[in-house]
Amino acid sequence: MNDVASLAGVSRGSVSNYINGKKIKLDTQEKIKEAIAALNYIPNATARSLKTSKSNFVVFILPTVNSPFFSALSYHMQQELQRYGYKMILCNSNNRSEEEIEYIQMANTQKVAGLITMSYAEVSNLIATDIPLVSIEKRVSDKVPLVIADNYAGGQLAAHTLSQSGAKHLLFVSKNPVKNISTIREKSFFDYCNTHGMIADRFIARDIPNFVDDFQEFILAHIQDHQFDYDGIFSDSDEYASDFYNILIREGIKIPNQVQIIGFDGARVYARQKINLSSIKQPTDKIAEKAVEKLLLQFNGDNKNISLDDQTFLPVSFEQGMTTRVIF
Amino acid sequence: MNDVASLAGVSRGSVSNYINGKKIKLDTQEKIKEAIAALNYIPNATARSLKTSKSNFVVFILPTVNSPFFSALSYHMQQELQRYGYKMILCNSNNRSEEEIEYIQMANTQKVAGLITMSYAEVSNLIATDIPLVSIEKRVSDKVPLVIADNYAGGQLAAHTLSQSGAKHLLFVSKNPVKNISTIREKSFFDYCNTHGMIADRFIARDIPNFVDDFQEFILAHIQDHQFDYDGIFSDSDEYASDFYNILIREGIKIPNQVQIIGFDGARVYARQKINLSSIKQPTDKIAEKAVEKLLLQFNGDNKNISLDDQTFLPVSFEQGMTTRVIF
Repeated sequence: MNDVASLAGVSRGSVSNYINGKKIKLDTQEKIKEAIAALNYIPNATARSLKTSKSNFVVFILPTVNSPFFSALSYHMQQELQRYGYKMILCNSNNRSEEEIEYIQMANTQKVAGLITMSYAEVSNLIATDIPLVSIEKRVSDKVPLVIADNYAGGQLAAHTLSQSGAKHLLFVSKNPVKNISTIREKSFFDYCNTHGMIADRFIARDIPNFVDDFQEFILAHIQDHQFDYDGIFSDSDEYASDFYNILIREGIKIPNQVQIIGFDGARVYARQKINLSSIKQPTDKIAEKAVEKLLLQFNGDNKNISLDDQTFLPVSFEQGMTTRVIF
Repeated sequence: MNDVASLAGVSRGSVSNYINGKKIKLDTQEKIKEAIAALNYIPNATARSLKTSKSNFVVFILPTVNSPFFSALSYHMQQELQRYGYKMILCNSNNRSEEEIEYIQMANTQKVAGLITMSYAEVSNLIATDIPLVSIEKRVSDKVPLVIADNYAGGQLAAHTLSQSGAKHLLFVSKNPVKNISTIREKSFFDYCNTHGMIADRFIARDIPNFVDDFQEFILAHIQDHQFDYDGIFSDSDEYASDFYNILIREGIKIPNQVQIIGFDGARVYARQKINLSSIKQPTDKIAEKAVEKLLLQFNGDNKNISLDDQTFLPVSFEQGMTTRVIF
């Protein structure tokens, strides 16, 4: 900083003010800018953040990035943060609360600008109260805004779509434990079936590493004369839905002619490409947009717009892939 | 810290020593441990890192996470770092060098333990010389270890596999600009074809957002009487290979009967599932393992094992999907 001040012919204080974004004279600004460029000077972010008590980093805690949904969400989150000049630090907790806690400690001590979390641990008491926080999908505490897709509408939409495209004997498939949002997706699916007098069963695989064997066994037990006992399948996850798809195809069942399948999430493997599996699509772009909006409100100290029970439900939509019939 | 010292009945210095991992008496350790648990005390990581000059965070800079390959690689990187007690901070540069530079500045000032980068910018001069660094896929400088898949072997293996499974008229497809590892994959593919007297053409889409239209136009111009002019396709990317697959299927071409397709990367959408597209698989697990190994060598100050020209080439393999014939 001394070198910059010396080359620019201004005081060290002026350089410090410039770096910290304080108001200084226009010609002084220009001189400092040129000196910084000439010296390839990089301001010390820690020193700066200790002065201003904030950085432009936002920590985003995810359970994993190794799935299309979380990949897409983190992509949109970064794009959205970037629009407002913030950088994203992606922390992948691998569904372990100890990991989450360490990331939150880092966020606390490094004075990041804010925290967005899909945390599944009970961590609200660990977060410094002065760090703006937004939760996605699962409520951290009743003092933190929540952004979530309308999972209840999603289960209903899946049952409705299968019904409209001619399925008569429905099946809900998942894997133990079925909890949180999965419970909601399942409940709304069966609520629709009950209301509309549709037959619907459920099959839940055990919580074991090779749970796909359970899917396989169930399917084999329900195929007779090249016909599967169910003609409409819904899963709370694209992953399990695609397991069913793969096994049914391998057993010679025609999809969507004999069996139609709808998953949940609707994230694309490559952003440009169409999905193969029909699915209830979560609006990852809108979720990111809303989460960042709720965070920025807190940056601006505009907490009056955040009630203690601030929840944003975002609409889901049905996305036609190749596993449901096209309804005209 | 004062509260912990007071409750444990030990000096503040002992608590500080305990937190910083210095040797203290066993019974003192126990007292401090209990006091920390009772008070739910979280040591200030910044304060600790300022004292010890290092943290247990490793920054991993990726161009994007929104693709199965980068998702899988970041998953394995985290697993591997965790084995040795390090946490990963994933920074997604979105292929912009300004982003990378800001992340590197953060790494410099926050005294992270190390940096692993798939950076595409020229950033070697920006990295503090005392931060252990490993590069993946693209060389940062000749002083930094490089871990990379054997891309040359990959292109050869693709041509060899297509040839063995009966393809006679090969096509290489990609999108402009074809550079770095893509150039190597293409060159080795054609080298094999030339050596073995096989016919091979190339089609490269323009560098425009809707470049898939170029693929579409090319394919339509080369279909006559329900036959595509080529019977073996290789792309340097699973993404472009799956574009070709989708268009050919839509045009009624049978795969793999009429046309066989091999992509590059071989990353799975869900870790447990088989791939649909046959591909040259990069060993994401081994890449992560080797990168962390090269980083740990530097942590231990064991630089004598890192030459100025340290490059690790990891073997690729052919992974059978549903787009090539099974060879017995």
